[in-house]
Amino acid sequence: MRAVVRRNKQLVCADIEELTPGPGQVLAKTLCCGICGSDLHALHSFEHMLELGQRSGGGGVGGGIDPSADIVFGHEFCAEILDHGPSSAKTLKAGTRVVTVPVMMTATGVDTIGYSNRYPGGFSERMLLSEPMLLEVPNGLSAVQAAMTEPFAVGEHAVAQSAAGPDASLLVVGCGPVGLAVIAALKSRGLGPIVAADFSPARRALAEVMGADEVIDPAVQSPHAGWSARGVPTTFAERAMAQMSGTGKRAVVFECVGVPGVLQSIVEGVPGGAQIIVAGVCMATDSIEPSLCINKQLDFRFVLGYSPQEFAATLHNIAEGRIDVRPAITDTVGLQGVAGAFAALADPERQCKIVVDPSM
Amino acid sequence: MRAVVRRNKQLVCADIEELTPGPGQVLAKTLCCGICGSDLHALHSFEHMLELGQRSGGGGVGGGIDPSADIVFGHEFCAEILDHGPSSAKTLKAGTRVVTVPVMMTATGVDTIGYSNRYPGGFSERMLLSEPMLLEVPNGLSAVQAAMTEPFAVGEHAVAQSAAGPDASLLVVGCGPVGLAVIAALKSRGLGPIVAADFSPARRALAEVMGADEVIDPAVQSPHAGWSARGVPTTFAERAMAQMSGTGKRAVVFECVGVPGVLQSIVEGVPGGAQIIVAGVCMATDSIEPSLCINKQLDFRFVLGYSPQEFAATLHNIAEGRIDVRPAITDTVGLQGVAGAFAALADPERQCKIVVDPSM
Repeated sequence: MRAVVRRNKQLVCADIEELTPGPGQVLAKTLCCGICGSDLHALHSFEHMLELGQRSGGGGVGGGIDPSADIVFGHEFCAEILDHGPSSAKTLKAGTRVVTVPVMMTATGVDTIGYSNRYPGGFSERMLLSEPMLLEVPNGLSAVQAAMTEPFAVGEHAVAQSAAGPDASLLVVGCGPVGLAVIAALKSRGLGPIVAADFSPARRALAEVMGADEVIDPAVQSPHAGWSARGVPTTFAERAMAQMSGTGKRAVVFECVGVPGVLQSIVEGVPGGAQIIVAGVCMATDSIEPSLCINKQLDFRFVLGYSPQEFAATLHNIAEGRIDVRPAITDTVGLQGVAGAFAALADPERQCKIVVDPSM
Repeated sequence: MRAVVRRNKQLVCADIEELTPGPGQVLAKTLCCGICGSDLHALHSFEHMLELGQRSGGGGVGGGIDPSADIVFGHEFCAEILDHGPSSAKTLKAGTRVVTVPVMMTATGVDTIGYSNRYPGGFSERMLLSEPMLLEVPNGLSAVQAAMTEPFAVGEHAVAQSAAGPDASLLVVGCGPVGLAVIAALKSRGLGPIVAADFSPARRALAEVMGADEVIDPAVQSPHAGWSARGVPTTFAERAMAQMSGTGKRAVVFECVGVPGVLQSIVEGVPGGAQIIVAGVCMATDSIEPSLCINKQLDFRFVLGYSPQEFAATLHNIAEGRIDVRPAITDTVGLQGVAGAFAALADPERQCKIVVDPSM
């Protein structure tokens, strides 16, 4: 079958071995699969990602992977069941469209589909999936929309881990796929106003479409200039009055950039007592001033991935129209277009989320 | 009256102007006052502390201070009321021994007693205190013990802000005054086992006396080697079994050192899902690897000070014998011994908490 293979830190279209579903597995036809920022990083720096995963004791992308061997990326997929392996429950019949957390249950642990030497991801014509993990795609939902369950579940998790609520003033820093997913998850809960900041006009426009109530270009105006106006006490007088009246809001900031320096810029900008949800994956070493964090009594919560429940909730939010993922999708390519799409994603003005359709 | 004055970044014994209590103030005789690590830092780097306070928007030591003018440090005090200013309630009579959060309420905001050009701290024979803030020292409690309310309230606050509880596995990194206060606050709640780490044998011995169940010399053994044995799942198999049986504990680490590199060493060592309470005040810029924090989904909570309620609870814990502060006190000096005591505190083997008694 045809697949896009990472080989010698390049993406090449190649024929790879056909798959045979084992016990508890299904063989599925890939309908479409989004390209994730992690894939862009992994193309050139998979060794670094694996090293970080190992140093994390199993958090993040897991162990047992040989980065010098072929790997087929793609973990944001929607697929159609073709066949069932032995000892499978067959609850979902062949022909059913499914999504799943990109995890393969095995006798020795879990593998990440799309970051594995054994289980190719969605940049291939077919995949093996773990039958107990499958969710049926509701009727009427397109495969492309369903495939966005995975990246948008990241926003659901980030918001679920946060103190976002009626008493919070919400700022999303960075409006790439992670920031947009956070905005969508906030909006699906009816929370707001949501302020979103990004240097890119195209990304700011997307943020507004996804539900941001106010967008800020940090090159023009600090997103932290408006905390007082947004109801968060920042001066002694404001804190005293907020305490008397019980009305002050707490600043809750979602860091969705993942570039060194952004965390410290948020530390500098936020008022005391703020919560910072760190969802942007910064792969480099970063610097902070702990004394400022202490003086402000900040709370950092670093988040990753999602639970199966959050994944399922996101699918339902998309199916029921509470989250419209379509504006985030800026292009669709076939397997032969994947390498070019990886390059194109470097420009936030042109692209946000590119979906791969192996049938194209 | 006699006082120890910070002048040209030196501590000198000097005569300073007598104090007259204003409205809402009392004049009090300083019975004793502990030397805090912040005082050591402020002696040479007060300008830096003030700059950080200003950049924090009022968190930490406040504004309106001229660091080039005379300042009398000392905010861990017990005092005896001598006289009341006009318009005072006189609820507590002259002769009453009192402690208080080191804060002076004024018409323009709050001043920190001991970090102020106007309100000398406890390294002086007499002080002005804010009458509404005073707490009476219970009978039978020595002035020295009562003076320890302030530094031990820091531990009470750190623990109150944490997820420490029956489901947490507790590690205290650094057994200086902050770490010991954390250990005492954990012990006063009946929590444990408490593991404490410090390079200094003397500090480890103190940690045991204060209630640590196990002490570790990080030069010999990593305090993170024992998480599995302490019931925190660290491997895939342990996590799976903990999830099935609902028995896994969460790692809760108190960072009480405040030196660059310690936070990252904790990030490297803790298992996934850990909470890190940052109570050690690191004044320098520090480096972390956010991707490890993300892979492990860590929670950092930076804490400072205490609430008036936590301060009062600490006084009661000391008075009722739930916290014995006495082992932490390693020396008592008169005003003329303060400069030498500041120097002596550099050696953790010799000193931990030195108390100043202006009558000596």
